[in-house]
Amino acid sequence: MRKVYLSNTPRQEALELFQSKTGIKRRTEEIAVKEAEGRITAEPVFARLSMPGYHAAAMDGIAVKADNTFSASDQNPLSLEADRGYYQINTGGALPSGCDAVIKIEDIQILEDGCAEILAPATPWQHVRAVGEDVVAGELIVPSRHNLRPPDLGALLAGGVTEITVLVRPKIAVIPSGSEVIEVGRERQKGSVPDFNSTVIAAYLRQWGAEPEVLPIVPDDLAQIIDALEKALEKHDLVIINAGSSAGDKDYTYSALDQIGEVFLHGVATRPGKPTILGQALGKPVIGLPGYPVSAYMSLEWFVKPLVYQSLGQLPPEREKLEVKLGRRVVSEIGVEEFVRMTIGHVDGRYIANPLTRGAGVTMSLVRADGLLVIPANSLGHEQNETVEVELYRPEIELRGNLLAAGSHDLIIDLLGTALKERNPRVSLSSAHLGSMGGIAAIGRGQAHLAGVHLLDPETREYNRAYIRKMLPGQKVHLVNLAYRMQGWIVPVGNPDGTAKIEDLAEKKLSYINRQKGAGTRILFDHLLDEANLTPDQIYGYEREEHTHLNIAAAVAAGTARVGLGILPAARAFNLDFVPLAEERYDLLISDSFYNSPEAALLFDIIKDPDFQKQVEELGGYSMRDAGKNITVK
Amino acid sequence: MRKVYLSNTPRQEALELFQSKTGIKRRTEEIAVKEAEGRITAEPVFARLSMPGYHAAAMDGIAVKADNTFSASDQNPLSLEADRGYYQINTGGALPSGCDAVIKIEDIQILEDGCAEILAPATPWQHVRAVGEDVVAGELIVPSRHNLRPPDLGALLAGGVTEITVLVRPKIAVIPSGSEVIEVGRERQKGSVPDFNSTVIAAYLRQWGAEPEVLPIVPDDLAQIIDALEKALEKHDLVIINAGSSAGDKDYTYSALDQIGEVFLHGVATRPGKPTILGQALGKPVIGLPGYPVSAYMSLEWFVKPLVYQSLGQLPPEREKLEVKLGRRVVSEIGVEEFVRMTIGHVDGRYIANPLTRGAGVTMSLVRADGLLVIPANSLGHEQNETVEVELYRPEIELRGNLLAAGSHDLIIDLLGTALKERNPRVSLSSAHLGSMGGIAAIGRGQAHLAGVHLLDPETREYNRAYIRKMLPGQKVHLVNLAYRMQGWIVPVGNPDGTAKIEDLAEKKLSYINRQKGAGTRILFDHLLDEANLTPDQIYGYEREEHTHLNIAAAVAAGTARVGLGILPAARAFNLDFVPLAEERYDLLISDSFYNSPEAALLFDIIKDPDFQKQVEELGGYSMRDAGKNITVK
Repeated sequence: MRKVYLSNTPRQEALELFQSKTGIKRRTEEIAVKEAEGRITAEPVFARLSMPGYHAAAMDGIAVKADNTFSASDQNPLSLEADRGYYQINTGGALPSGCDAVIKIEDIQILEDGCAEILAPATPWQHVRAVGEDVVAGELIVPSRHNLRPPDLGALLAGGVTEITVLVRPKIAVIPSGSEVIEVGRERQKGSVPDFNSTVIAAYLRQWGAEPEVLPIVPDDLAQIIDALEKALEKHDLVIINAGSSAGDKDYTYSALDQIGEVFLHGVATRPGKPTILGQALGKPVIGLPGYPVSAYMSLEWFVKPLVYQSLGQLPPEREKLEVKLGRRVVSEIGVEEFVRMTIGHVDGRYIANPLTRGAGVTMSLVRADGLLVIPANSLGHEQNETVEVELYRPEIELRGNLLAAGSHDLIIDLLGTALKERNPRVSLSSAHLGSMGGIAAIGRGQAHLAGVHLLDPETREYNRAYIRKMLPGQKVHLVNLAYRMQGWIVPVGNPDGTAKIEDLAEKKLSYINRQKGAGTRILFDHLLDEANLTPDQIYGYEREEHTHLNIAAAVAAGTARVGLGILPAARAFNLDFVPLAEERYDLLISDSFYNSPEAALLFDIIKDPDFQKQVEELGGYSMRDAGKNITVK
Repeated sequence: MRKVYLSNTPRQEALELFQSKTGIKRRTEEIAVKEAEGRITAEPVFARLSMPGYHAAAMDGIAVKADNTFSASDQNPLSLEADRGYYQINTGGALPSGCDAVIKIEDIQILEDGCAEILAPATPWQHVRAVGEDVVAGELIVPSRHNLRPPDLGALLAGGVTEITVLVRPKIAVIPSGSEVIEVGRERQKGSVPDFNSTVIAAYLRQWGAEPEVLPIVPDDLAQIIDALEKALEKHDLVIINAGSSAGDKDYTYSALDQIGEVFLHGVATRPGKPTILGQALGKPVIGLPGYPVSAYMSLEWFVKPLVYQSLGQLPPEREKLEVKLGRRVVSEIGVEEFVRMTIGHVDGRYIANPLTRGAGVTMSLVRADGLLVIPANSLGHEQNETVEVELYRPEIELRGNLLAAGSHDLIIDLLGTALKERNPRVSLSSAHLGSMGGIAAIGRGQAHLAGVHLLDPETREYNRAYIRKMLPGQKVHLVNLAYRMQGWIVPVGNPDGTAKIEDLAEKKLSYINRQKGAGTRILFDHLLDEANLTPDQIYGYEREEHTHLNIAAAVAAGTARVGLGILPAARAFNLDFVPLAEERYDLLISDSFYNSPEAALLFDIIKDPDFQKQVEELGGYSMRDAGKNITVK
């Protein structure tokens, strides 16, 4: 087994090294102007013809020779003979020879004999578009390195330019590698990984102006990787190998590049993105991207995007930046530049950001992210409530309408988000999965619009009210029922262990999968333990945590746990069995300021909409009988 | 001749009317996720499969059963047997059955017998990616009405979704109309207009997410227009007719739409854009766009863009806004909402904006515009130095590097702009054609970086210095020579009038075309008149003004003037004859703050570059013998 230690080169230094040692060769091609939107000019372009190419009427009316109209006045109307003294003309029409002015249709009267009567003289060249007013031959239309927009195409065509020399979109090969990698859509076996990275990488490259080509998947075999790399280098300006850039015994990207070219660097001081390889072969840049999706896409953006834009003589567009207040602490390690995906909502006039999971493999963290927090290598991170700057993945204007749902997560919250967006494209919803307790705290700090809560108070045996009273004393908040939902044991098909009560878990030593601290379901489980006079150490797997009902069900489905506590739709999603335990009340805790907003009114409309309620109840285990009902907190 | 008066409906009211009475029908289609970048989801999408679909190694190393490692310690290393006690595993690999933890490659030692030695116990589930960590089956991946970005495609594919239901891009027909309209690229006759509008309109529509189809050109014939409209309505969701929307006797759009559908409105209270027709036929929106390019594109944006975005459940992206100081007064008429295209530069920390020509036909004004000033109908406009808000056509960040060249215009200024952008994509150059006098004044007010000046002082017979001393007393500025250039008479081929001296113009009553007030060339002409003891009223056409050398040459070429004063390359652009009169010095007046900037250093580098000088001299009539030389002003 090889032992390879990656270097820890700062990202900026790595990019400078890469750019100083290699780059994409700039080439030009001639294309039709009609097809040139978004392309980059290779040289300044000058008009060949003038537009208009003749003196033209700027108004609908009649063309005259101004000299012949000097006598016209209110008292002394002048009558001009058709097709001798005047000519009918429409906007854009060519001025008949001998004419040098146009009189507007509103200012003339056509008499019965066809003569035109005018009440004022025309001044020479009035209402005449001079030749070349729009574009004049010889004029610079667009400079070199110009990104062609729709009106540019118009000016070029008006100026008689129908073909144009542009910079070639760099051709980039994407080589998916790995013996476990299969094409997307193929049936998955245990241990096989569908190659979705190539689709994402190609889509990014196209956005940036490159022309990607995804090549066939290459297994973990040095000779085959070298062969694929050599072939790709023949036709492409840059080659990406994904993955095989790490330090495992089957990571051949380093060796392949080392043999036929040169490795500049292996390992960048970032998280995610560390196992990146930068090098060249045949004078062309080659990059080995990490296999984890988030790592791969970030590394692609850091090292390939600048090269693509450079080859097109452009600067990569900068992301909008925004000051946000942190809803949660974000710790970081010294020596590593960290990239934390964040959800951002606009609560009471302030932007509140919460970190998403940092897993380098969690594509969903990029899907859900509204922005990115970059923590420099020399920082230990940031405290809760600290104000930090984030780079935005969505325009700020969109984030203004972004509701922040903290607290417990339920599929209904997602359905609410999608229904909101359907009814008003200005409104969207981001979730911070903080658990019920975290949700109440976030509402308490004014850092969320709403929070899903389902917390059973053992003493009163009632949901939510006692917790809110205790955690938010004196604060005006609103509690609105969303649904009742059935909690129960999620177990394998046929319930082979006969799980029924919590005592079964302890007695039969069933491998359990728990929810995270602060989650309502965790608190329910602890309450059940208490009632049964059991302690956590009697439950095998009590320490193993997941963050959602679906992930609990997934673990049971994968056979690594025998039982979990959760809701019916989660069991259904995996075709598992479900043993109902208790119906719980799932409420929305809502801040006072949001409660009275138009967005909240829309939210309540949706909750009370029979179609929406039907959609929810069809998920299974939900009752919407009190949906939208206000619950007195005090 | 028909007399049609257009209505004067405010733009917002017109749009509301249009949207309330018609719209694009929303349809859905199923497409491959691989091709779905930029498409809009028609419904929420949930994961069908989990990713990973099994418990996987999160690190390269060995897979073990944690229970079996509890005894390992520094003092008591534990040796595990290959393929029984441990299994080699790479990141992403499936955990062998029975294993529940991964130990990192860095933390183990492979012994000679193939056993792995560990110095610490593994905790259960360490370095294991749980099933569904990336995407879990049943999870909402993207909501309805979501604009799909690259990572979304990754999450969808990871979640086992390979086909997706999206909203259909609305199909929009563009019918070019007008008997004078010919296809672009065809040879132009006097009175023919190439149909470049359709290319621009189609490019805009594509940008907004629609699928345009440009149909064949239809002549000004009511029956043919009705026929084309009916056919277009069969296959398309919205139909655009361009042009024929005005009130001339050949503008049939109104009648056509009136006959087969309904006209909601004819005439919007805007400049440009007034002659717009909004209506419907067969329940589909129909719009008649004005013929003038700028009018057409603006009207398209006001009335078609919102319908396209609405049909996709999206809001049109808003343009960035910016506070700018006006370098010139901008007057406006009460009752009309005006849209003034502006150049914007960042001078001494402030954004300075100057209006471009307002001609509705001047496509180049959109090409050159950095932003748009919208003057409401109830405003008389704005004074010089007033601060106003403009909508940006280019991102603010780009405008920060935008140099503002005021003053006299010369082709060399354009070449400098394109050379700057080639050398540093951060730097661009916008020109405000203010004439030499206007340029000095702009530098005096701190509202330009540089200004081209060529002003002959009749007393000293020297260029520029006297004017600057007089206009900018005590102000520290820099004067740098750009070129010497030959001014002369631009005359028809063969110089049929034998034009040689200014006296010829008066004596032979040659039709003259003049430059605008404040232009150096105008001042030169006045000086020549003075020297010859002539007065302006002795020159036929003295009042007729153009703003550039090329436009002077264009008028001579078109035969509407016999002579103009200008530079050699302008005459050459139109294959005209040129009678040299005098070589003049063309200098750059540069503000003190800009003079010491890195951008100025780059500018001087270019001016002194022999390749650049050669390029200029090849234009004809230029001498770069002193290019880049500093000239003492005092």
